[in-house]
Amino acid sequence: MSKTIHFLPDNVTVIVEDGENLLAAAANAGVYIPAFCGGDGVCGKCKVKIKEGEVASDQAKRLKKEEHDQGYCLACQASVISDLVVEIPEEIKKDGKALKRNPKTTRSISARSLDSLIGEWVVSPPVEKRFLKLDPPTTDDNIADLQRVLRGIRKGCSDCKEPTYDHPALLKELPFTLRESNWEITAILLRGKRQREPDRIIAVEPGDTTDRLYGLALDIGTTTLCGILIDLNTGKVIAEASAYNSQIGYGEDVISRIIYSQRAGGLKALQGKVVYTINTIIETICKKMIISPSDISYIMAAGNTVMSHLLLGIDPKYIREAPYVPTSSHFPLTTAADLGVYAHPSVRLFLYPAVASYVGGDIVSGVHACQMHKSPELTLFIDIGTNGEIVVGNQDWMMCTACSAGPAFEGGGIQHGMRASAGAIENFHIHPETFDPMIITIERTKPRGICGSGLISIVSELLEAGVIDQQGKFNRAIDHPRIRQGEDSFEYVLAWDKDSLIGEDIVITEIDLDNLIRAKGAMYAGYVTLLESVGMGFNDLDRVILAGNFGAYIDLERAICIGLLPDIDRDKFYYLGNASLVGAQISLCDHNRFRERSQVSKLITNMELSESPDFMTHYMAAMFLPHTDMSLFPTIKDKLSG
Amino acid sequence: MSKTIHFLPDNVTVIVEDGENLLAAAANAGVYIPAFCGGDGVCGKCKVKIKEGEVASDQAKRLKKEEHDQGYCLACQASVISDLVVEIPEEIKKDGKALKRNPKTTRSISARSLDSLIGEWVVSPPVEKRFLKLDPPTTDDNIADLQRVLRGIRKGCSDCKEPTYDHPALLKELPFTLRESNWEITAILLRGKRQREPDRIIAVEPGDTTDRLYGLALDIGTTTLCGILIDLNTGKVIAEASAYNSQIGYGEDVISRIIYSQRAGGLKALQGKVVYTINTIIETICKKMIISPSDISYIMAAGNTVMSHLLLGIDPKYIREAPYVPTSSHFPLTTAADLGVYAHPSVRLFLYPAVASYVGGDIVSGVHACQMHKSPELTLFIDIGTNGEIVVGNQDWMMCTACSAGPAFEGGGIQHGMRASAGAIENFHIHPETFDPMIITIERTKPRGICGSGLISIVSELLEAGVIDQQGKFNRAIDHPRIRQGEDSFEYVLAWDKDSLIGEDIVITEIDLDNLIRAKGAMYAGYVTLLESVGMGFNDLDRVILAGNFGAYIDLERAICIGLLPDIDRDKFYYLGNASLVGAQISLCDHNRFRERSQVSKLITNMELSESPDFMTHYMAAMFLPHTDMSLFPTIKDKLSG
Repeated sequence: MSKTIHFLPDNVTVIVEDGENLLAAAANAGVYIPAFCGGDGVCGKCKVKIKEGEVASDQAKRLKKEEHDQGYCLACQASVISDLVVEIPEEIKKDGKALKRNPKTTRSISARSLDSLIGEWVVSPPVEKRFLKLDPPTTDDNIADLQRVLRGIRKGCSDCKEPTYDHPALLKELPFTLRESNWEITAILLRGKRQREPDRIIAVEPGDTTDRLYGLALDIGTTTLCGILIDLNTGKVIAEASAYNSQIGYGEDVISRIIYSQRAGGLKALQGKVVYTINTIIETICKKMIISPSDISYIMAAGNTVMSHLLLGIDPKYIREAPYVPTSSHFPLTTAADLGVYAHPSVRLFLYPAVASYVGGDIVSGVHACQMHKSPELTLFIDIGTNGEIVVGNQDWMMCTACSAGPAFEGGGIQHGMRASAGAIENFHIHPETFDPMIITIERTKPRGICGSGLISIVSELLEAGVIDQQGKFNRAIDHPRIRQGEDSFEYVLAWDKDSLIGEDIVITEIDLDNLIRAKGAMYAGYVTLLESVGMGFNDLDRVILAGNFGAYIDLERAICIGLLPDIDRDKFYYLGNASLVGAQISLCDHNRFRERSQVSKLITNMELSESPDFMTHYMAAMFLPHTDMSLFPTIKDKLSG
Repeated sequence: MSKTIHFLPDNVTVIVEDGENLLAAAANAGVYIPAFCGGDGVCGKCKVKIKEGEVASDQAKRLKKEEHDQGYCLACQASVISDLVVEIPEEIKKDGKALKRNPKTTRSISARSLDSLIGEWVVSPPVEKRFLKLDPPTTDDNIADLQRVLRGIRKGCSDCKEPTYDHPALLKELPFTLRESNWEITAILLRGKRQREPDRIIAVEPGDTTDRLYGLALDIGTTTLCGILIDLNTGKVIAEASAYNSQIGYGEDVISRIIYSQRAGGLKALQGKVVYTINTIIETICKKMIISPSDISYIMAAGNTVMSHLLLGIDPKYIREAPYVPTSSHFPLTTAADLGVYAHPSVRLFLYPAVASYVGGDIVSGVHACQMHKSPELTLFIDIGTNGEIVVGNQDWMMCTACSAGPAFEGGGIQHGMRASAGAIENFHIHPETFDPMIITIERTKPRGICGSGLISIVSELLEAGVIDQQGKFNRAIDHPRIRQGEDSFEYVLAWDKDSLIGEDIVITEIDLDNLIRAKGAMYAGYVTLLESVGMGFNDLDRVILAGNFGAYIDLERAICIGLLPDIDRDKFYYLGNASLVGAQISLCDHNRFRERSQVSKLITNMELSESPDFMTHYMAAMFLPHTDMSLFPTIKDKLSG
């Protein structure tokens, strides 16, 4: 159940989920509360007064008894359990006067998550189980065992094609399974890949096992693998698990993995590592659900092109060398066990096809999930990361490209950058007059560093508060202890050493800002170049879809503010979360949707940006916050000048 | 070039091939010449006078110089090199009178070998090579390597389907093959199994290798494997080889092989042995033709149901137990290397489908070869052996059955029985008055024993000469040293110890005769039961096709005489030799003919004879030479009474 919170004196009302952290609720509402320790309860700055309603708060850190009795609490330690009216105390300036709060116009906005994007699907998976009671053979009816099973399947299905069958795994056990189960068996059938193709018997189990039919959807990321287990009888997700890709020991990004693969035994080692990670996910899920891995009858996976090559043991060498050619962009249905995956020998592993070396099956799966190939609406599909992938188009055509944004969005190349894990600053506000921070970390610990979404918050807040200018340089005129000349450049202190988990000041530097500007500039230049190549611009767009987990955490307004996303109608933005996993999930549940995947990859044309002069021009123009051409960012122009 | 021989005083003229052995020519013409040593030149009995023409004779064994000067020679040592007039000297009886020759009416007849049976086929094999000069990738055209190959194949073929492709063997080498060969490669394509199915790329070779495209047709017999190598660019047979099935050490027949397969490790051992034999054939052929096994791009094989199971490592256990159910009657396209066959990893091995446990792929291949499935003529297809297979039908329907004739036709269960190899008596005549034999052995050595075709000759000659009666019992009234009471039963001495290779008398006994009668009785009862089951009789038949090597050696008239074949118009008989190999050969050359194979196996219905009371009745009635009902054998009735 949701609760309503009214913040005073800002007069801002938000609706939050039951149990939400009060500080996080304020941050998301754009209400500034001083908070220096990330939500850990140690700095004691985020004192607020509960004027109406109740909060749950297990400890009263840094609060005097009388304060507590007067209704004060630390916002970072309070969970919302009823509708509230919350008053934020006025701060006292050094000159003794109360600081008049100046509520910001910026209201944090997330892109819309819309289930309608992924459309309708029915439970009709690409693998099915059929229970058969067969007549035992007699002298007058002594057709072969396999042909008896095939006949059993055809029975009552006059127009269906003769199924094909697996060999030889199936035939080795078949006669014994049939006789031991007294001719009552369950056949596992794989549907033909295309409409006209016959089904295929991949396994036979004794007795009736039709109630146990599971599929695994798998997103094979360079950093993380995510798996979800689906009950293919109901289409419901019943378990999920994720694990770091064990290949990380051989390099953080795809390029270093390719380099490693060229060593003697390197390809094999990398394949072994990703298979090990998949097995870890399968084991975790099976333990959780008390099922056997052999109850999983299909694995539907998507990964980028390099991950796909490595999983299949195909050499990715030429992906790295111009003109960036993968060995194959389509990967046929594989037997999972042949790869070393902990699965029944009959289980198939499908890998989504790629478009190019740097636009992989994860993107195809995502585009497939959101049905761009079926919609007349002109859509921009974006997956922001070290390698940013961009697709634009609709049901008639699609163009895609990849641009190397650098690792800033994943915390790389930033002095205190880190991955989005516990202690990472994920949300940030700055007081427009005191320039003090309000920092919220993941899991509300003391801060350890800054993750991608935090970085976007910080830069847009510093820009709006005038602490930095549009070139990403600090305003030297401001005299504030948090703004200082650092070792290499000017910097802003986000957290003092005493409030940080790492025992030193956590800062953001001009060098960090420069790296972020390059990253967001590359993405923006990518959108423009791709759109221009088809004679279009942002105004032609009907929708912008943000894919990737990162997309879900982006504060839309702030991302537009720094120029990472185009300044268009906010209602056009949607996010799809882990789109790659969503695509795999839909394909696993509905074989008719699955069959449509080939339309997607056929429709998409790749464009190489790396040597495009147009891209370079757009990139240079985007090296500004938000852009050198402010007419492209009318709402930001107003905001910054206001 | 053929030569004409006129034999005197019999006044029989025959046309023979240049270089034919004179004794064999006489035997085939039904002209009796005394010959006790099988053609080895040692008995010196087969003295004839060359009245006109010339023979080649390297030695004048046992001939006096004056005889030689008068134009005499030993028929068994003479090769025909010109047209001849040959006089056979009159023999002198014990009473001093010349024995008047009484020419037999029996003229040896072989069934007709007719190429029209196998019909038209074109050179369009199920595997083909395509040389491609590909454009190297550029930034504007950087599709994946595999997709570049696929595009190259589609070029200039607007309506052809996108080929599928092998994985992962193909993808592992592809990027390197392409770059090392400067993008000039030969793709090996497997045609879709059915009309609508797309082709499949199974391998890519550097450069232009289209001139090297070979296929191996293989007959996998219980005793012998025969292989022929075909140049798939021309359709010509360019080499052949055969080898004993190395499984023989584990049992002579399919039943003992099944029994062995049930031991621990037995199935694997048997699979290993047949694969070893296939590899021997491949090695022999490759050495002979100076080609590499990797130049063989397809293996088309046919074998009986047990051999097919064993090759694929599928348990044949239930083939032996009533109701005689194989694990599978269809065997999907296998990768030869996966079975251990010495072949490129891409090479497919196809095994003809079986109909039932005892009517296997060899029979389907044979029926396929002679196009019964396309002809309106009612045809009886017979493969005589330990396991006799019988198919009757036409383009609309076919029935088949197997009957266990016992091993008599392969020399088993016969005191001096042996396989058809050097020293086996393969042809026999008896002098109707002296009761002396004329024996011809394979390779003209001294006799070692009797093979199947020899046995049929011997029994029919003894019957016609009245030495045995229609029950297969010796006429005790004849007083002749060759006809005697043996250890267990009466017997006829075919060769005295001095004329035999084994140093003892070679005989045929009443027990042998009894075994032969059972064997031929089972075959005959099989034909009748099968025909009756569809309301037909021998008079409805348009054709009788004899398959198997044995069929080619059968003397038609004699086989009818003993009741092994029905007494119908001799012009209706055809023989097809190793029909199984012929079927595999045609399928290897012409993929459209290959695709028709499924019509064949779909059309054939199996009938189990083992428990049929009708069969037992017919069997009992056939335990007579030729049959208890002589009205079924009108020409034999005349002959025996004449």
